[in-house]
Parts: sequence; structure tokens; C-alpha cells
Amino acid sequence: MVLFMKMYDLINKKKNTEKLTGEEIEFIIQGFTNGSIPDYQMSAFLMAVCLNGMDHEETAALTVAMAKSGDILDLSAIHGVKVDKHSTGGVGDKTSLVLSPMVASLGIPVAKMSGRGLGHTGGTIDKLESFPGFSTSISSEKFIENVNQVKMAIVGQTPNLAPADKKIYALRDVTATIDNISLIASSIMSKKIASGADVIVLDVKTGSGAFMKTYEESLALAKEMVQIGTIAGRKTFAVITDMNQPLGNAVGNTLEVIEAIDTLRGEGPKDLFEVSITLASYMLVGAEIARNVEEAKSMLYKTMEDGTALNKLAEFINAQGGDNKPVYDTSLFQKASIAYEVEAPTDGFVSYIHTDEVGMTSLVLGGGRETKESVIDLSVGIKIRKKLGDAVVKGESLATLFANDKDKLEEAKKRLLNAYVIAETKPEKPKYVYAIITKDGVIEM
Amino acid sequence: MVLFMKMYDLINKKKNTEKLTGEEIEFIIQGFTNGSIPDYQMSAFLMAVCLNGMDHEETAALTVAMAKSGDILDLSAIHGVKVDKHSTGGVGDKTSLVLSPMVASLGIPVAKMSGRGLGHTGGTIDKLESFPGFSTSISSEKFIENVNQVKMAIVGQTPNLAPADKKIYALRDVTATIDNISLIASSIMSKKIASGADVIVLDVKTGSGAFMKTYEESLALAKEMVQIGTIAGRKTFAVITDMNQPLGNAVGNTLEVIEAIDTLRGEGPKDLFEVSITLASYMLVGAEIARNVEEAKSMLYKTMEDGTALNKLAEFINAQGGDNKPVYDTSLFQKASIAYEVEAPTDGFVSYIHTDEVGMTSLVLGGGRETKESVIDLSVGIKIRKKLGDAVVKGESLATLFANDKDKLEEAKKRLLNAYVIAETKPEKPKYVYAIITKDGVIEM
Repeated sequence: MVLFMKMYDLINKKKNTEKLTGEEIEFIIQGFTNGSIPDYQMSAFLMAVCLNGMDHEETAALTVAMAKSGDILDLSAIHGVKVDKHSTGGVGDKTSLVLSPMVASLGIPVAKMSGRGLGHTGGTIDKLESFPGFSTSISSEKFIENVNQVKMAIVGQTPNLAPADKKIYALRDVTATIDNISLIASSIMSKKIASGADVIVLDVKTGSGAFMKTYEESLALAKEMVQIGTIAGRKTFAVITDMNQPLGNAVGNTLEVIEAIDTLRGEGPKDLFEVSITLASYMLVGAEIARNVEEAKSMLYKTMEDGTALNKLAEFINAQGGDNKPVYDTSLFQKASIAYEVEAPTDGFVSYIHTDEVGMTSLVLGGGRETKESVIDLSVGIKIRKKLGDAVVKGESLATLFANDKDKLEEAKKRLLNAYVIAETKPEKPKYVYAIITKDGVIEM
Repeated sequence: MVLFMKMYDLINKKKNTEKLTGEEIEFIIQGFTNGSIPDYQMSAFLMAVCLNGMDHEETAALTVAMAKSGDILDLSAIHGVKVDKHSTGGVGDKTSLVLSPMVASLGIPVAKMSGRGLGHTGGTIDKLESFPGFSTSISSEKFIENVNQVKMAIVGQTPNLAPADKKIYALRDVTATIDNISLIASSIMSKKIASGADVIVLDVKTGSGAFMKTYEESLALAKEMVQIGTIAGRKTFAVITDMNQPLGNAVGNTLEVIEAIDTLRGEGPKDLFEVSITLASYMLVGAEIARNVEEAKSMLYKTMEDGTALNKLAEFINAQGGDNKPVYDTSLFQKASIAYEVEAPTDGFVSYIHTDEVGMTSLVLGGGRETKESVIDLSVGIKIRKKLGDAVVKGESLATLFANDKDKLEEAKKRLLNAYVIAETKPEKPKYVYAIITKDGVIEM
């Protein structure tokens, strides 16, 4: 009853636009996580937060309280500065597969924890399972050992990582309390902070395929997250990158692994390479391996040129039980049974791509999870043939769909055609990177 | 799932300060009443209403939807215009006991439905049970018959009166979503509208013992309720009356009945008489029995002078099985065993009364319900001896406490002393009536 009344008072405080103390926020998060604060009080509180906001200090306190609601990973047994990268999510986003071996090959430990959420494609773990035998079910001792020896390891997300965030997110999802910057930022950052990295590089996507559709929203989110990370004592950078079209050309699990390998061999799409190397360069700067971004970029470029990054990928796959031969011969990967060209219905220029719809095309083909129970078909997906600003002739291929099921292919084809807008005038091509946000300010590109 | 998503969209709409349609509001109320909309969605919605507000049309739609969530009383079998009075609640408020027999004695049907809520004293029904044998457990046929013959009857509240309001109120009570004018007004008015009266007179209390502490808040609530009643097709008046001290001198169940009888005999306190006759006069004007307030007041005054109102009370008590002899000899009522004088600790003037604390004194003595299970002691209570602006001498009685339990008396005495502020300068006496609100505007006194 005392707890109950205290929560009442705290809801009331936020309703009256007063600032909550760190202790008060911790009380709320602990109480909601252990069940002493019921859903209906929490949802009223979350609505008050949505409408009256939280300042930077409150948001940081919320984040830390959520991080502390479960296990905090202890990475102290890993030698060196631990760096981590997180993306707010987009279509065709396989930067982790490109930059992790690059960074690891320079001796920086990449200790990655990754989930298997719902989405257009699987997560990084699902993608890596394209390598036969690859497993993330390794003990934490083996994980630490691999990071120290190989400098790169990936493990499934512990179920007790920021449980408060999981519970709060489920409630926000059904009470129209999603779109508040403090709640979004704290949700992302609580998991990153619990994951134990010293340096955090955030890839904040912006555009038609991103959670944040406009640059302004993305910038606000990036600033908030950098603030939180800084207050929580982590060196934090954010990079705002384009998501007005898929990143690179491949969308789908194995297809994306192949594209990442191509990129590590210097034969990948330019946008994917640029975004990956920019993110990686801030990981190097944060770890103090490079003095500045230019130096970092040239170090990273060299890992591609001399093949050390590709070799690092192969070493990592092998260390986690996978067959690494496909790293050197991607024709060994399992392929989808059908390849279908989606033809342009008219002449013109690709003027807009509903990127979310491209993602839905992958989901429809079976490449992602609609529910927790969905089984992913790793071989299906899309190879984009035309991107923003490209000229197209009627009948020319916009994209190739890779499918294993004719019915799914029909629906996927409709989706993909809906995603493309073809117009008479040629649009400007979007930038790859819009801005860098550090604790000291914003650098616009 | 469809219902669930629709509620999501409606929460979102109110969160974005958009106006809801009548159909949308009805959907919410129906869904919450039948359980298809869960508490956590409703509490998020209520918080959005608290912070973004509702306009008059939305508030009226909410009220009607809540009224329609249960039984709507059909009073069509009662001859004449049905009038009802409602008070927002205060300490020592026994106006119903005074004005109902006055109005009924003029031939206007008073069909009262009353609850047994929590409070400092019982409700009107509890108070009337001071008459041995009096019962409100009568059939609806008997109720209608009594109203037609006696012009006055009272019955317990049906459990299915505006169930949506009951359920919403319980949720507001634990989620800090009480203090919104639309929610307060619709809660009160939904029950009044479901009760079926044609004319509604609202007694909106203001001051230290009222729900609304300031005149401005009380005025806003009064205006909102008159708007709702008018939109719902009921002739509605509101009277803002003082609650900076108990109304009259008696607080407690039987004590209040005695004071009401004294008032009907022309020997009651002036404030109680003035407030009762003002409220009653708008009931007469609303029922078109009097052309104006002055005429109504003189008609009402006459029912006191010639004893018809007192006789009506006796007739009504008898018709519902009660022994009405105490109407003519109040010494027949059961009395408390202890009478204790609370002495003034110092000389001066009564400059402020924490009226809520006087109410708590009655509750502590056993005169009200703390929980639904509490059993009320009808004989206990307080007789106020000193009111605002009165001069007091140290040792003089501020109030007499009537108790049946010495331990409770000790605590009650402390409460009563805490309620009084005695100062050196004489304060102004408060008005009895501050303003009248009709659909045409506000008349300040």
C-alpha cells in the first residue's frame, strides 16, 4: 500500500511537469520489474512522460535504472578497450558483418551480444548461421576466451538483459506511448550499457525505411543517446546515416552475408562500404587506436586491401564451430530455388523507394520473423538492381527476388512494385552519412 | 485484436490533442465496461485526457456514454416534472433532508436515489435510518406509488447505475487522474442523467471542506456540469455554496436529522436554511411551479411557517415504514452516551476552520464509513459551537463531541482542536451562496 501510494505520487509529479529524482526513477523501474507496480499505473506514468517529457538527467537515470534491472555484463576479463556498435534498424543493414572483422583485425576486441528479434530479415546471429555449423550457444568462459584470442566473438542475448526495458516496451506497444524521445533513447541505451562496452558507436538511420523518418527526429534521438551514454560514463558517438533506400543491394540473410564478404574483398556497394568504414572509424577513435577519423579510415582500408579483415572473418567463423570455406567461395552457400526478375512497369527514374515495403518483401518471402515462432528461410531475399536516381527502361529489372515458394513470390512481387516510385525527373541522390554527434556537438556532412 | 488496435488509435488521437467523436467515446466506454479494453489502455487514455483535455461536446458524449453503460431509470410513470438535487459533498451537508419535504409539500415529485458511500458521515439513507423501522428496500412499483401519492420517496442506488463510472473512478483513484474537470463533471452527471430527473440542481461546494477548494475551480466545474446537463436535454442549474466551515452546526447522522427538523420548524441555523431554500427555489423554477426565485422562496418559506413541510417529512417516514414520532419530538432519537466539550486553548477569533478535519473528527467517532464494511454509529457526532468570525475565550467550548467510546473520543478531540485556527483579528464571515450558474450564464452574489 505504501509502495502503491508512492507510485501514485510519482505519476502525479510527472503529470504536474515536475522533475523526478534518480531515486524516484529507480523506485519506479524496480517496482514495475518486480511486479509491485501494476501495468495500469505504469501506463498512466508513461503517457505523462510522453506528454510532459523528461530532461537529460531524468532520461539518463531511467536508462541506468533499466540497465540495472537485470544482469550487467562483466567484460573486465577482456583485455583492452571494449567497443560496441548499435543500429536503430534498417533494411539491408549488414554493417556489423563488414566492420566487426575490420576492427577485430586491428586488435580491438569486438564482444558482441545479439538478439533474434522480429524483423524483415533475421538478426546478425541468424545471418551468420548461413555458415554450416556456426553456433552462438557458447559458454561465457568460451566467449571471453574467444574475444581475447580471436578479438571477435558473438553470443546470443541473455534473457535477463534489461528486463525492465522488455516489460516497458511491451506496455508502450499497446498504449500509444512509443514515440517519445526519452523512452526510445533509454530503451536502446539501457541494453547497450548493460552489455558492458566502454565505447558505443550508434548508427542512427533516417529516412523512409527508418524508425525516424526525418533528419530532425534522427538528430534529436542521436543527441539524446549520446547524452545518456556520456552521463553513464561511456564514450559515445552517433552517426546519422541514410535509410531512404536499402543499404547496399542485398536484403535477406545469406544474400547479406555474401554482400558483406564482397565488401571485405573490396567489391561491395559503395554506400555499404562508406557507412561501415565511417562507423568503424569512430570505434577506432573511441578506443584510442587512431588519433583521428582520417587515420582510422586508412587503417581500416588497409585491412580490406591486404585481406586481413576477410581472414579475421574466417578465423571467427571457425572459432565458433562454423565451416569457413564459403568466406573464400560464396558459391558454396545454399541458394534459393527460384530467381525472379521484377520488371519496371514504365520508363523513368527511381524517384522514391518505400524502403519499409522492400523490407516487407523480404518478410513475405520468408526471410524474417513475423512472430517469435517463425522459422527463417536463410536463402531467400532480394537483390536490388535499381536505386534512387537510377534511370530505368520499361521491362528492365528493378530487383531480383530469390524465393522457395511460388505463392510467396506472387505477393512479394506486388510488394516490391509498390515500393518503387518511377518518375520523369531525376532526383538527387541521398548522402550516405548526414552527421556525426559527439558529446561536444554535431558535425554535419 | 481489432478492438485492441482501435483503442490504441483512440489513445493516440487524444495524445495528439485531436477531438474524439461521440461514436469513438462510446466505443471506449462500452469496451472498458465489458472488459474488452484493459485497464492499462484505459489509464493511458485517462492520463492523455488529463493533460490534453476534452471539449464540452466530448465531455457530454462521455457523460451520456457512461450513463448508458447501465440501467437508465424510467420515471415516466411518475406524474409531473421530476426534479433532483445533487451536492458535490461537504461536512454537515443535510440540505436534502430540509429541502426535499419543502419541495414535495408543494406537489413536486421528489424521487430520490441515494448511495451509501464512504465519508465523514453516512449518506441521506443512513441518516434517515435514525427513524426506527425506516427502510429504503422497497420495490420499484412501491417507489413509484409512493412518489405519486406522498410526492417523496427515497430508494437505495441500483448496483447497475452507470457501472462505467464506477469502474473508471476506481482506476482514476490509483493512477493520479482524478483532477480533470471533464472527468469529474462527467462522473457526477452520468449518475444524475441515469437517475432520470428532468430538472437537476447542483450544489457545488467551495472551500476548505470541499473537493474544489477555490471559487475558480468550483465555477469551472459548475459551468461544465450545466453544459453537460443542457446538452443531455436536462434543465440544469448549479449553485456555488460555501464549505469553508461545516454547513449548520451538526455533523453526524442523527444529529443532522435533528438539525434538519429544527430547520423545518424555523429554528435551524441561518446558513443551512439559506442554502437549502436557494437550492429548492431553483428546483421550483426548473419545474415551472414558480415564475422566479423570489416567488419560489416565498412559497418555500410558507411550507416552513405553516408546518406543511414538517408534516410531509413525517408522512414520508411513515410511508417507508419508519416511526415518525421523533419528527415531532426529537428527544425520542437514540443518543450517544458521552457528551464532551472541546475547550478553546486561547482567546481570540475563529479565523480558519480546516473543515476536512471536522469531517475526520466525525469519522473517528464512528459516524462514517472508512471502508465498505464499516458499521456506522448513527448517534455520534459533533455540535459546532463556534463558527468563523466568532469571538472565543480560553476554556469556552468550541464544539461538543458526542461519543460512545472513550478511546475514539481522545483522538477525535485532537482532530477537532487541529481543525480550529484562533487568531487575534476578526476575519470576514464567508457568504452562504457565491453564484448561480444557468445555461445562460453566471450570476455572482
